[in-house]
Amino acid sequence: MTDPVYTYEVLKDFALSIFKKIGCPADQAALATEVLLQADLRGIDSHGIARLSGYVRLWNKKRVNSTPGIRVVHESPSTAVLDGDQGLGLVVAPRAMEIAIQKAQQVGTGWVAVKNSNHFGIAGYHAMMALKHDMIGMAMTNASPLVAPTFSVERLLGTNPIAVAIPAATQPPFVADFATTTAANGKLEILQRKNLQAPIGWVQTKAGGPSTDPDETKSGGALIPLGSDREHGSHKGYCLGAWVDIFSAVLSGANYGPWVPPFVAFLDPPSDPVGEGIGHFFGAMRIDAFRPAEEFKTHMDNWISRFRAAKTVAGEERVLIPGDPEREMSAQRMQQGIPLNPKVVEDLKALGVTFNLAF
Amino acid sequence: MTDPVYTYEVLKDFALSIFKKIGCPADQAALATEVLLQADLRGIDSHGIARLSGYVRLWNKKRVNSTPGIRVVHESPSTAVLDGDQGLGLVVAPRAMEIAIQKAQQVGTGWVAVKNSNHFGIAGYHAMMALKHDMIGMAMTNASPLVAPTFSVERLLGTNPIAVAIPAATQPPFVADFATTTAANGKLEILQRKNLQAPIGWVQTKAGGPSTDPDETKSGGALIPLGSDREHGSHKGYCLGAWVDIFSAVLSGANYGPWVPPFVAFLDPPSDPVGEGIGHFFGAMRIDAFRPAEEFKTHMDNWISRFRAAKTVAGEERVLIPGDPEREMSAQRMQQGIPLNPKVVEDLKALGVTFNLAF
Repeated sequence: MTDPVYTYEVLKDFALSIFKKIGCPADQAALATEVLLQADLRGIDSHGIARLSGYVRLWNKKRVNSTPGIRVVHESPSTAVLDGDQGLGLVVAPRAMEIAIQKAQQVGTGWVAVKNSNHFGIAGYHAMMALKHDMIGMAMTNASPLVAPTFSVERLLGTNPIAVAIPAATQPPFVADFATTTAANGKLEILQRKNLQAPIGWVQTKAGGPSTDPDETKSGGALIPLGSDREHGSHKGYCLGAWVDIFSAVLSGANYGPWVPPFVAFLDPPSDPVGEGIGHFFGAMRIDAFRPAEEFKTHMDNWISRFRAAKTVAGEERVLIPGDPEREMSAQRMQQGIPLNPKVVEDLKALGVTFNLAF
Repeated sequence: MTDPVYTYEVLKDFALSIFKKIGCPADQAALATEVLLQADLRGIDSHGIARLSGYVRLWNKKRVNSTPGIRVVHESPSTAVLDGDQGLGLVVAPRAMEIAIQKAQQVGTGWVAVKNSNHFGIAGYHAMMALKHDMIGMAMTNASPLVAPTFSVERLLGTNPIAVAIPAATQPPFVADFATTTAANGKLEILQRKNLQAPIGWVQTKAGGPSTDPDETKSGGALIPLGSDREHGSHKGYCLGAWVDIFSAVLSGANYGPWVPPFVAFLDPPSDPVGEGIGHFFGAMRIDAFRPAEEFKTHMDNWISRFRAAKTVAGEERVLIPGDPEREMSAQRMQQGIPLNPKVVEDLKALGVTFNLAF
């Protein structure tokens, strides 16, 4: 049985209506919808419209503020700290990235740490905002603790993604966007829905032992940092996740480590917060603060062409450039529609009923 | 048989004399020695005095300039590009980091890309320069192509390390410093010297197949990006290595990807360079450009204490904080001396003979 397919426009209209129903101003509802749907288009299904009802449940619990007063609380010529006022990360993050871009226009680079925010969708969207300004963009965020550092059985970090977007001239941009774990949580959700096992090295049991159960985190187990085990460098994945946590939350004044509030509304945030909400970190670097932009982009074309032309191992068609799979998926889904898992469809229908909207 | 042990002072005096013999001005010889020996102290033996004769061979080939005119060739309030004039990276990199720190003092953050440089020792040394200024420090560099991107049999990237140093209050600083491959090349060198096999996932054969031979790169094989294989996220390690390459070299105007000159003097640099020398990238962020430094550092103490106190898997004593092993090794070796592999000792003795210096 294949999943039902919806056009981008249908999903967009529905998400927009929902965001308006929970009280988002029209411009913010449009922005939140745009960010959310980019995940579906780019094939990162776990971060798209599948999360819509989750955002609504957080709003129900008054953990998401649909009319936030987002404001800069600290700044220098190249930096700022933004208080997201418990807004949707989908709205707070683009605002932060805009400020980073403005700072970069003025002094070459801009760096913005954000506190008091919520889940911001896909990191890649925000990093890519820099591209049209001939800037390199970076975005990272911390997230609910599901990941055990190397040697730990406790879950102290989120999947803490990093995105880096780099412009080229005639080639499409380089866009890396990845969780700092061996596998993103969304990949485990796919296995759960299909009743499949996970490879060894993605999750560990409550006691820290090996497991292939994609539901392991529901019984006290944990995701594993990129590297899978100590011998294969999981301490490096742990370093990456820790770096993202500290930049996103210790610099900004958000909650960090095990204090990050859970995304799911049925779990309460820790009663002893060390900061406000979740945290993000953004950067924008003007290319011509380093060298002429055209010169740089011509060399990026050369870099990309050379890597794309690399000789492959037998059975593999090509070496990918970061961003290739998502860009190709986006073109395909814009034309052919976006497949949704039946459970997601049920969830959206229920959401429609609640708000008296047809899905 | 245990390796012979030398005091820090003995190795330091010898390295200092050698750097002077090849014509480094006294202050630069002292700095190069300091950076080089920190690798030995911190237990990163592959990047320390074991490389001394390699630097000398590059100097012999006129690929290292011992009296470089290091200069800023482009800048903005928060950025600079530095031309290392073929100097030792051990000298060029600290100069770049000083500029990053000065920029951060003025506008909150400073970012310096470097071209026309050579191997810079351990990335962690340079990142840690920021700590005493209550700044976060970052350092990365590209390196000779030994790493095959996911699905590639060609070696297009170096082990391209990243270091991030973050100050705390009463706790020692957080210092992450790691190659973006599953295993650093130095770990393979150790296995080679001991005639041991490597775990699957560290290297691949010339055809891209699995291998346990630590000498695989000598017969056309390659190191593998962090993650080991596609299923365990090697494409993320590839993204990291690519990011380091682009920031270090495409931003600065150095050679990138397969055009990076080899560290070993017996291999000539590519005849069709795309830039000058190898490239580095450095960053410094003033903590109080985001929030008061004392407040931040107190939270870092809390972060570190919480992670250090995490419950461990059976058989493991503790969860490490990035920087713990190197700091402990450094204290031990400063007191008990630095063991050198007999092959390294032979190499240093030969170097001494060449320059009429006793080792």
